[in-house]
Amino acid sequence: MATGNVASELIERHRATLDKALEAIRTREYWSPFPEHPKAYGETGPADGKAAFESNLNRDFELAQPGETGERVGGEVSPYGIELGVTYPRVDADVLIPAMRAGIPAWRDAGPGLRAAVSLEILARINARSHELGHAIMHTTGQAFTMAFQAGGPHAQDRGLEAVAYAYAEQTRTPVEAPWSKPQGKREPLEMRKAFTAVPRGLSLLVGCNTFPTWNGYPGLFASLATGNPVLVKPHPRAVLPLALTVRIAREVLAEAGFDPNLVALAAEAPGEGLAKTLATRPEVRIIDYTGSTAFGDWLETNARQAQVYTEKAGVNTVVFDSTDDYKGMLGNMAFSLSLYSGQMCTTPQNLLIPRDGIDTDAGHKSYDEVVADLSTAVEKLLGDDVRANALLGAIVNPDVLARLDAAKGLGEVALASREVKNPEFPEATVRTPVMVKLDASAPDDRAAYLSECFGPVSFAVAVDSTAAALELLRRTVTEKGAMTVGAYTTSPEVEAGLEEVCLDACASLSLNLTGGVYVNQTAAFSDFHGTGGNPAANAALCDGAFVANRFRTVEVRRHV
Amino acid sequence: MATGNVASELIERHRATLDKALEAIRTREYWSPFPEHPKAYGETGPADGKAAFESNLNRDFELAQPGETGERVGGEVSPYGIELGVTYPRVDADVLIPAMRAGIPAWRDAGPGLRAAVSLEILARINARSHELGHAIMHTTGQAFTMAFQAGGPHAQDRGLEAVAYAYAEQTRTPVEAPWSKPQGKREPLEMRKAFTAVPRGLSLLVGCNTFPTWNGYPGLFASLATGNPVLVKPHPRAVLPLALTVRIAREVLAEAGFDPNLVALAAEAPGEGLAKTLATRPEVRIIDYTGSTAFGDWLETNARQAQVYTEKAGVNTVVFDSTDDYKGMLGNMAFSLSLYSGQMCTTPQNLLIPRDGIDTDAGHKSYDEVVADLSTAVEKLLGDDVRANALLGAIVNPDVLARLDAAKGLGEVALASREVKNPEFPEATVRTPVMVKLDASAPDDRAAYLSECFGPVSFAVAVDSTAAALELLRRTVTEKGAMTVGAYTTSPEVEAGLEEVCLDACASLSLNLTGGVYVNQTAAFSDFHGTGGNPAANAALCDGAFVANRFRTVEVRRHV
Repeated sequence: MATGNVASELIERHRATLDKALEAIRTREYWSPFPEHPKAYGETGPADGKAAFESNLNRDFELAQPGETGERVGGEVSPYGIELGVTYPRVDADVLIPAMRAGIPAWRDAGPGLRAAVSLEILARINARSHELGHAIMHTTGQAFTMAFQAGGPHAQDRGLEAVAYAYAEQTRTPVEAPWSKPQGKREPLEMRKAFTAVPRGLSLLVGCNTFPTWNGYPGLFASLATGNPVLVKPHPRAVLPLALTVRIAREVLAEAGFDPNLVALAAEAPGEGLAKTLATRPEVRIIDYTGSTAFGDWLETNARQAQVYTEKAGVNTVVFDSTDDYKGMLGNMAFSLSLYSGQMCTTPQNLLIPRDGIDTDAGHKSYDEVVADLSTAVEKLLGDDVRANALLGAIVNPDVLARLDAAKGLGEVALASREVKNPEFPEATVRTPVMVKLDASAPDDRAAYLSECFGPVSFAVAVDSTAAALELLRRTVTEKGAMTVGAYTTSPEVEAGLEEVCLDACASLSLNLTGGVYVNQTAAFSDFHGTGGNPAANAALCDGAFVANRFRTVEVRRHV
Repeated sequence: MATGNVASELIERHRATLDKALEAIRTREYWSPFPEHPKAYGETGPADGKAAFESNLNRDFELAQPGETGERVGGEVSPYGIELGVTYPRVDADVLIPAMRAGIPAWRDAGPGLRAAVSLEILARINARSHELGHAIMHTTGQAFTMAFQAGGPHAQDRGLEAVAYAYAEQTRTPVEAPWSKPQGKREPLEMRKAFTAVPRGLSLLVGCNTFPTWNGYPGLFASLATGNPVLVKPHPRAVLPLALTVRIAREVLAEAGFDPNLVALAAEAPGEGLAKTLATRPEVRIIDYTGSTAFGDWLETNARQAQVYTEKAGVNTVVFDSTDDYKGMLGNMAFSLSLYSGQMCTTPQNLLIPRDGIDTDAGHKSYDEVVADLSTAVEKLLGDDVRANALLGAIVNPDVLARLDAAKGLGEVALASREVKNPEFPEATVRTPVMVKLDASAPDDRAAYLSECFGPVSFAVAVDSTAAALELLRRTVTEKGAMTVGAYTTSPEVEAGLEEVCLDACASLSLNLTGGVYVNQTAAFSDFHGTGGNPAANAALCDGAFVANRFRTVEVRRHV
């Protein structure tokens, strides 16, 4: 356990940040303590970070965890074509898990304040290594560097800090001690002293994802750690390094603060081993955080019954086009949303619902065909320059995405063809511009396509009979298939009200008339919730009270005074 | 929807109560707006309440709900021997449920403040009818009148109000609207306006219990209603009237406030119909609150996968005897705890763990046999007078409890025999004093008895090798079987620390050295949590953030400024 000095120094060091974070989640105003500009990390930051990343390559990644079997697993290959050559220890869960649980009492007794401070110290050290992490994320997810740096670095750190703030707020709603005095008429009052302790549920398992290992992983990791639970990190076999670095930093900070470093550990596996299934159903595992396919999310919810399971699964994101007073802004905004990271985001729009009679705009009435053509042209223009295209698209993360992209051509008339982009720095990278396919909501044969998630750079320009029909299709899509995001363009207050009603009823968040530098596929920590947790795309939102409140329980001890 | 005047008048009327409740859940100090003394309800309150109760008997209970089939169900028989003769409408869920959902948009749009005010008005009207409800609870649960009045009246109302306060606090953590301005260096900042709406999950189902229909029912009912969900109440077939009265009051208040009365409805059934199963798996049902057997609780958790399921199930409550400096107080306190409502509480102690070498007390060392004999004598003395016995014991609620009481004699040496008590006012009431049976923790044959819940007036004086052995058995019992309460008597700081460690680790709340007017089986709203939600006895605590946070979701709508 931390000595008093170490503890109070840590708490003091991070008090202002925690207070600001607590204020931000109350006000939902813009705030971040982690600069998103790569240049904000010192003159030598970029070069040092790149060198640090490279120093990890082609060697054994050491963690010194209990239960390491001596075997090594690895085999990450960058979507940019580099073999990372990093190996990770294989662990025996029967040894590692009891060792992780051994640290619980001291971590629990530390209390919410010290746990938050230790968590913030971990985040601060992660932040200082954002460049190194940026490269690790780039070469596991295929994100272009700037996005890998920002989304996987400071933005992911924001989401982790947000989770710590919610966890702290939740645990401190009940005082540590309270007097209780009940009047008894003329007799002496009944007097009690009550103590309340936040106790962890048990072991927390993070099942990492390939595309956003840190952004989607940090909320669960830090929510569980800050509420007293040890966290076992099972990374995606293709995106181990970003979480391995995270785990190593967490272990260092825990040990320095006087806690058991095994409160955070890594369980890497070779591709195809199915380690998540084995771990998820162990009785010690009481919390699971997962981002990935609907099939495995459903499997976890059905089978890991001993655990609280937080899942983010597939969804079908929709944008409704009704009318706009900034046609150019709309086209530019949508082109960016469809292109960013080759559409490999759970928040990328897929179904673009456009009335077959067209839409009214400040540039005149535009027919369905004109809107589709103009959207296609906007994407082509945005990605016309290969340097910019590479910087926006990143690389295709895996062959499944490429297969879906290729198959999309066969689903309908291609409005926007995908093209191959050369990456001069990484000639082996698979870089593709998005495809857009025309579908018709009235054609029964098209239904299967627009009512399934087609994860990757594929969108469907779905012709609908009217805006009212678009709203009905939106409601059906969200209710049946789920959605992480909904966008819409309209100048009509009635349509706006109708959209809001559908989104409130089907429980999806709505971005209205985005024409500038905010995109439907991006959410900002402390202000925007990521997902609602109320439709099939996810059973939890990042981050709210429900995301943290059941990761711990309160034990009361009461005595007579 | 409520007109502005009605809405603001309701909010004003209940603002101070809500503010006090919000303060009480923060400070955990003693507070209640609902007087627990029967005399506090006016000079004619008791007689009026009794008359009101009687006016319900032998007639059709009218609710005017959609989907009533014309058939009537009923058949409640008081544990005191009276046939209530009340019939309730049978409803067609296929008609009723859509009608209940129709009220959602207006109730959602009312917002957390008005929903809290309407909920508090319902509670205030229920409170005014506490005497009527007290008789209804007495004659369905078998509780003696004073307990039925207090626990089923003001104390249940406290728990309902507590849930409303948590629901309000949770929904108002996020502002209704927030500006967002992100600096962009030398360019104009990105400016957004964001709106956040708490939206309900959907239909909430309350599966009522026989012994505490209101106390165990109000938290879920009011938590769901205050977070915007319609609530369908499926009472236990033997305890319909208390919840039917509650539903009728709720419907009246909702209608007066301009909302759809069908936001709260009753689905009564004849015994053995299994209506809860049918309703619980309907897709519209998104929340379930249940108190009752482990078997059906587990069934709900396994099968009602479309819903958030909050269950309170069986547990094995333990009291550890190590030492005391108030032997007489300990005996008196325990005798009361074992006797109250014939032990028919989920919080009644069952296993009394007593070292076989005895315990040190202020009255000298007491052997195991002496402690058991003195506890038995204390119970006999407490219940020696039939008037007091009837007032404490109430009546046996159902034949299963009686059967368990009779069977207990065969489990071991009887230390305290149960006796029949005559109730002069209700000669047909089944009234029994508790039985205490000696068991030995070292005897393998005794294990099945002390490691299962034996709900009713049965306790086991379990001889253990030492206090350390008691702690290990306590840990095992809570971990494997769950516990709503743990009690302990010790004068040793080391033993106290050991007890706290076991309770923190196994996640059970602990009452230490109760020797006065506070009993291990009673918890006070706003201060004590009922259960922890972290051991097998219950998956939720009454009431905390986790109990309300997932009954609603937040939908965000964001726009450029």
